[in-house]
Amino acid sequence: MALPIPDLPVLAEDDSMLSRKFGRELANYFAGSPLNRLSFLRTDHAFLSSAFSHPTTKFLLLQNLSPLAKDPTTLAYVHKADVEPLTGPDPFKKTEEQLLQEFNSDVTFPVVLFLGIDEKKKTGFEWREYKGEAHFAVDVTPQGPIAEKAKSVTEAVKAKGIDFLPGARHVSLNAPEAAIYAQARHMLDWNARNPFCGGCGQKTLSTNSGTKRVCPPTDWAGLPDGSKAPKERGHCPTRKGISNLSFPRTDPTIIVAVVSADGTKLLLGRSKRFPPDWYSTLAGFLEPGESIEEAVRREVYEESGVMVGRVVIHSSQPWPYPANLMIGAIAQATPSGETIYLGNDAELEDAKWFSQDEVREALLVGVDQFGQDGSQSRKEGALRLPPQTAIANRLIDAVIGGYLGAASKI
Amino acid sequence: MALPIPDLPVLAEDDSMLSRKFGRELANYFAGSPLNRLSFLRTDHAFLSSAFSHPTTKFLLLQNLSPLAKDPTTLAYVHKADVEPLTGPDPFKKTEEQLLQEFNSDVTFPVVLFLGIDEKKKTGFEWREYKGEAHFAVDVTPQGPIAEKAKSVTEAVKAKGIDFLPGARHVSLNAPEAAIYAQARHMLDWNARNPFCGGCGQKTLSTNSGTKRVCPPTDWAGLPDGSKAPKERGHCPTRKGISNLSFPRTDPTIIVAVVSADGTKLLLGRSKRFPPDWYSTLAGFLEPGESIEEAVRREVYEESGVMVGRVVIHSSQPWPYPANLMIGAIAQATPSGETIYLGNDAELEDAKWFSQDEVREALLVGVDQFGQDGSQSRKEGALRLPPQTAIANRLIDAVIGGYLGAASKI
Repeated sequence: MALPIPDLPVLAEDDSMLSRKFGRELANYFAGSPLNRLSFLRTDHAFLSSAFSHPTTKFLLLQNLSPLAKDPTTLAYVHKADVEPLTGPDPFKKTEEQLLQEFNSDVTFPVVLFLGIDEKKKTGFEWREYKGEAHFAVDVTPQGPIAEKAKSVTEAVKAKGIDFLPGARHVSLNAPEAAIYAQARHMLDWNARNPFCGGCGQKTLSTNSGTKRVCPPTDWAGLPDGSKAPKERGHCPTRKGISNLSFPRTDPTIIVAVVSADGTKLLLGRSKRFPPDWYSTLAGFLEPGESIEEAVRREVYEESGVMVGRVVIHSSQPWPYPANLMIGAIAQATPSGETIYLGNDAELEDAKWFSQDEVREALLVGVDQFGQDGSQSRKEGALRLPPQTAIANRLIDAVIGGYLGAASKI
Repeated sequence: MALPIPDLPVLAEDDSMLSRKFGRELANYFAGSPLNRLSFLRTDHAFLSSAFSHPTTKFLLLQNLSPLAKDPTTLAYVHKADVEPLTGPDPFKKTEEQLLQEFNSDVTFPVVLFLGIDEKKKTGFEWREYKGEAHFAVDVTPQGPIAEKAKSVTEAVKAKGIDFLPGARHVSLNAPEAAIYAQARHMLDWNARNPFCGGCGQKTLSTNSGTKRVCPPTDWAGLPDGSKAPKERGHCPTRKGISNLSFPRTDPTIIVAVVSADGTKLLLGRSKRFPPDWYSTLAGFLEPGESIEEAVRREVYEESGVMVGRVVIHSSQPWPYPANLMIGAIAQATPSGETIYLGNDAELEDAKWFSQDEVREALLVGVDQFGQDGSQSRKEGALRLPPQTAIANRLIDAVIGGYLGAASKI
């Protein structure tokens, strides 16, 4: 007996991962990467070596987490020859086992992160059944023992007239490259934040091309030349079984557009850090032992006093500042739960119910584009909203665009 | 202009957080806690002291992460007097600032975790406008310098005939208490796994009643009696601004029931660790720089070779083993992407398309109840599925129950 699936249009297909990645949902900014990560090959050092050495392979450089870019909208990639002064000719020559045996906590290797392959570029690298242009990211921040080598790389590329994108957020990049950058930034930042083991306090080693950090059982640091065996290190609980401390951290965060019980108003709040007249959807970290819907109800209650009934998950957005997964929801207040009370949490400076007309107007004239105040036509003191690169804007836009009255997505 | 919201039944209300926590979505096992966490009061040591000392306050003990329980379905709580030999009369006497100033890395405090208040119990504790029975969890694992004190607590409760629940999973607990346990387990485990700072390798201090770990700038350890000032500790990057390393980690994980393009079949897989005939939905960790839908498509492709088009998020489940948020989805394969290929990732031993009839039968007779093989009526070699406490079962049940043909949730 077949399931009834009324009105179920079939997804367009071609032979690359790219199109298969898009169903019917909204792809928020920083999502929608064109790369196939081939995550199962990260443990294969022969694969990594081969990808690293291929002439079509692209290297993205990050300095203090800023990407090398041609212009504010486009990343700049360099070649293997450009990174070699820092990485050496083959940073993947050795297996994880060999690296662990040779671990010396006084020696620092740069993080060379395998991002994936772009299967649209079929003339690129081949490995088994996988074909495409390989992409790596390299952390070239001039720090610690590798500072000089990193500098030699960055100075050489700057001499060619390319530079790192200034600023703290990089929301001017074109969408597919923003997703590549999000992956690179989140992963390299995780490596930079976690040089030590949370379980035992000893130095860790980056393996699997920047996607795992291991706490080695032995160390050659400080031993005289000609030593035959390394020192045993202190006990570490992460060495037994699989520990999540060895893998990148992503913090699930809820963000929610709350509509009034009758659907006519939208709840928005502002923190003290916001520019004048600027309001946004409420947001907060999901806590241990909570479902997404529970986190939404708790955060809205804590920040605004409003009681939420139904919660529907709308879309999600990777947000690499430093490591968030924004889970976007649209929720409905209960009829007697609409009173705003800021006395629970001190997080918001203000929260207000806005009419749909006010919000619709703000979407048109109160949204900044690339750091510029959105429009001259905004009235003094009228509502301003976050840009379209933020999921907050997409949630607000969905409500105003009739999401509540729309049919099911499946 | 009002938004059109056709057929929008209003949520039932009463005056507690509990009912407000439930909208129309499915509450999976380990979600649906009856407690209001009052997370904004965790920084208020006077509040915590007062809650700790109230005669109605309940203390849940965990030993090696197993809860104290009356029987396999019900938690056992103890009183302040029972935990005092370990915690002292008031573990919240000091502010975070004072604790930081007095930090001595040779001194170990037990973690006393504030879980929240049960507002249904109005005769309990009162603080400002908040009323209800306060709940704490205390880690009584006999380890390190506090081993003897912890033992004195556990032996005293065991002498009363109460014991810790055996086993590695605690899915026999009644649902509201399972959610309380999930919160306690996840948080206490996070504290136990992270005694050191990942940013600098030095010991950290648990503050905010077990919900934050701080890397103190100074240390009194090893100083002679009468010393006037503590030693400065090494630089730590987590001390500047807000660091996610200071807060509990939750790993977002996708889990997905994939239906065939025509909706007639369901894709299930098995790992080598599974009991005979047992299959489940596919699952895997969400990666940095991915939306939920992208993670679903990647994991299904990597584990089974199947290409997924549309993805709809169904529900979520906190899974405290050790720290997951399971994000449950229902997805649809593309018409030409249904061929199973296990050669990408080596994770699954097998993956298969099952007919709806097979799966419907397995939901009836192939599901274990509390560790017992589900039914005598299951045919030799017929499909077995995970229990109802697992979101995998709920996703499969949703598909078989007609989810794909159902109307929108909002």
